[in-house]
Amino acid sequence: MPGPLDGFRIIDLTAMVSGPMATMLLGDQGADVIKVEPPGGDLNRRLGKTRNGVTAIFLTSNRNKRSIVIDLKTSKGRALLAELVATADAFVQNFRPGAVERMGIGESAMRRVREDLVYVSISGFGETGPYAQKRVYDPLIQALSGLASIQGDRGAGRPRMVRTIIPDKITAITAAQAITAALLARERTGRGQHVRLAMLDAMVALLWPEGMARHTFMSGASRDRPIAQDLVFETTDGFITAGTVSDSEWEGMARATEHPEWLDDERFRTSEGRVIHAKQRLAMIERALKNRSTDDWLERLDAEQVPCAPILTPAQVIEHPQVAANQLVVEGEHALVGPIRQPRPAAIFSETPAAISRQAPALGEHTDEILEELGKSAADTSELRSAKVIR
Amino acid sequence: MPGPLDGFRIIDLTAMVSGPMATMLLGDQGADVIKVEPPGGDLNRRLGKTRNGVTAIFLTSNRNKRSIVIDLKTSKGRALLAELVATADAFVQNFRPGAVERMGIGESAMRRVREDLVYVSISGFGETGPYAQKRVYDPLIQALSGLASIQGDRGAGRPRMVRTIIPDKITAITAAQAITAALLARERTGRGQHVRLAMLDAMVALLWPEGMARHTFMSGASRDRPIAQDLVFETTDGFITAGTVSDSEWEGMARATEHPEWLDDERFRTSEGRVIHAKQRLAMIERALKNRSTDDWLERLDAEQVPCAPILTPAQVIEHPQVAANQLVVEGEHALVGPIRQPRPAAIFSETPAAISRQAPALGEHTDEILEELGKSAADTSELRSAKVIR
Repeated sequence: MPGPLDGFRIIDLTAMVSGPMATMLLGDQGADVIKVEPPGGDLNRRLGKTRNGVTAIFLTSNRNKRSIVIDLKTSKGRALLAELVATADAFVQNFRPGAVERMGIGESAMRRVREDLVYVSISGFGETGPYAQKRVYDPLIQALSGLASIQGDRGAGRPRMVRTIIPDKITAITAAQAITAALLARERTGRGQHVRLAMLDAMVALLWPEGMARHTFMSGASRDRPIAQDLVFETTDGFITAGTVSDSEWEGMARATEHPEWLDDERFRTSEGRVIHAKQRLAMIERALKNRSTDDWLERLDAEQVPCAPILTPAQVIEHPQVAANQLVVEGEHALVGPIRQPRPAAIFSETPAAISRQAPALGEHTDEILEELGKSAADTSELRSAKVIR
Repeated sequence: MPGPLDGFRIIDLTAMVSGPMATMLLGDQGADVIKVEPPGGDLNRRLGKTRNGVTAIFLTSNRNKRSIVIDLKTSKGRALLAELVATADAFVQNFRPGAVERMGIGESAMRRVREDLVYVSISGFGETGPYAQKRVYDPLIQALSGLASIQGDRGAGRPRMVRTIIPDKITAITAAQAITAALLARERTGRGQHVRLAMLDAMVALLWPEGMARHTFMSGASRDRPIAQDLVFETTDGFITAGTVSDSEWEGMARATEHPEWLDDERFRTSEGRVIHAKQRLAMIERALKNRSTDDWLERLDAEQVPCAPILTPAQVIEHPQVAANQLVVEGEHALVGPIRQPRPAAIFSETPAAISRQAPALGEHTDEILEELGKSAADTSELRSAKVIR
């Protein structure tokens, strides 16, 4: 059974992460994603530690795609792209605002060859405004969206970055959803459209529900929300987390730690009181949990139905029994780098399964195959190659 | 113009965040989302600081929905739900695995009344395995997915939580995309299906591209990746971030800070060298940036085309000119709490705009209206109310 997006073709001119992860998700779900790369290739192929010229991040942002190299600085290259777009359902790009128009591959040019195209523009900051033309890196969005401030140290007030590129990646999922919605609308209306998404907008929208809770009510809400203490507890051999929100969970914690006197403490008798006195309560829990091992505590807390989990390193995640039960990590073979590990697509479809059906392509690996599908003769292809239009 | 999901009806039995934010996104895009609540309502209505009985987080996870209260413990309540599902395209629930079957509202029961239904189950850890029956809180997923470890302190190795509920929220967007994809597949095949998504899976899949990069190549990659230093720099009156990846950006930084001698330093001559010697380089930048104000530095760095941004608090985000240019924050009026602020839906559709067309509903606000649409007479409704089937 093919995936839910089987039969849709996406022309993907994106680079780095925000665009490639979006189109990968669509590829996972069966779309025919054609990654159009410049002669030098997507920069993400070589930013960081490479093996045989490939980075790990590239592999997990570009599986389920085919790669064709086209030099769009040539008019023949642009003509070839137009031929490809004529066969496609969606076109996705994440150049800086205005660049596609200068390159001659803007929405109006592409819509001339494919009237019902879903044309997608992903930007860093938006298409107008003081930041529109700035180069974007993930930390800039963490800074501008309030995420770095929310992550900051209590007390000292020094901001801190989240150590994974959340803005890039949530933009990717948000874009994938929007593209899918535009394709769904097109099924009913027969019409394409332009979908625009800024990383800044995606990040602020994601943060808002609790991150910006204090700014939701417009009157009397000027102070920023005090930041809650981390639910991180050290054990004799590692770290665990545990939650005690409900009465029964709090009672379970007191039993598991053999501190029945906690239940007599007026401050902690209600869930509201436990929030107000969180600092004292968490310090008590922290002291109590120091004297046994992680496994011991997890067993005791589980027995009392206190929600808990070990804090795993990335290496431990792969080995964890729940991750194994979910069959989440799949091993594959990549032509250039050998055996690799990746997560399967997260959402599981009973009738139209998403799957890893091909690994990330080598640069231009499918140039000839795609030209042949377009009806080019071997002579045509050879001529385009000599003229350095394709590689 | 209605949104891209206009004409689709979603029956939403989810509570808290992972489910409600998913269906809100579909509601933003025009779907008719009917939130079915138990007599006590979604717990998220009252977890935290309330105003007039409403929390801020509830408002930004439940707009563009209608609320009906049905007591599903009664057989008449379940019959009423079945009548609703018969009119719907998708059904979304995030109870613990197995609960819907015990409640008599599992997939097979719902498919009997609507054969082509898209039935969606969101879980914390997965439907089988040692954690399947555990209660889930966001920190547990941060712990199990490796996120808390990646966020940890350098050196000391103490894990740290990300201070926004990333697992809940990325599960929501991932679910919204999967639901949209399943609806799109149904347009072509005429068939519904069961879509399953675990928060743990969504978080690990999101983290992987760089967070698990060292575990992607399966041979010779046992050490966890050293964590990069934060790109946070203190100024005389605040904090900024700035990136110096390319040669030109590094040269721009040296000019902006009036440190031409940095360009003679062999260690920093190549982008690779700048990564290897990041610690020394960032310490130099940190010292250099301490002596001027944020505005002054942003102007100087901009002039030299060094990517940079101020690190904004949530309150400052709302006032920032780029956020204003994007018209990202919209003000509205909520019947119970007065004026509120929210972000507009992040993705902008040129032909089928997403919009905030109604604010989050009061508990059971639309019970009568929805029953009337189902063709119930006033007498029927009154009888259901007396029998405490609806509220």
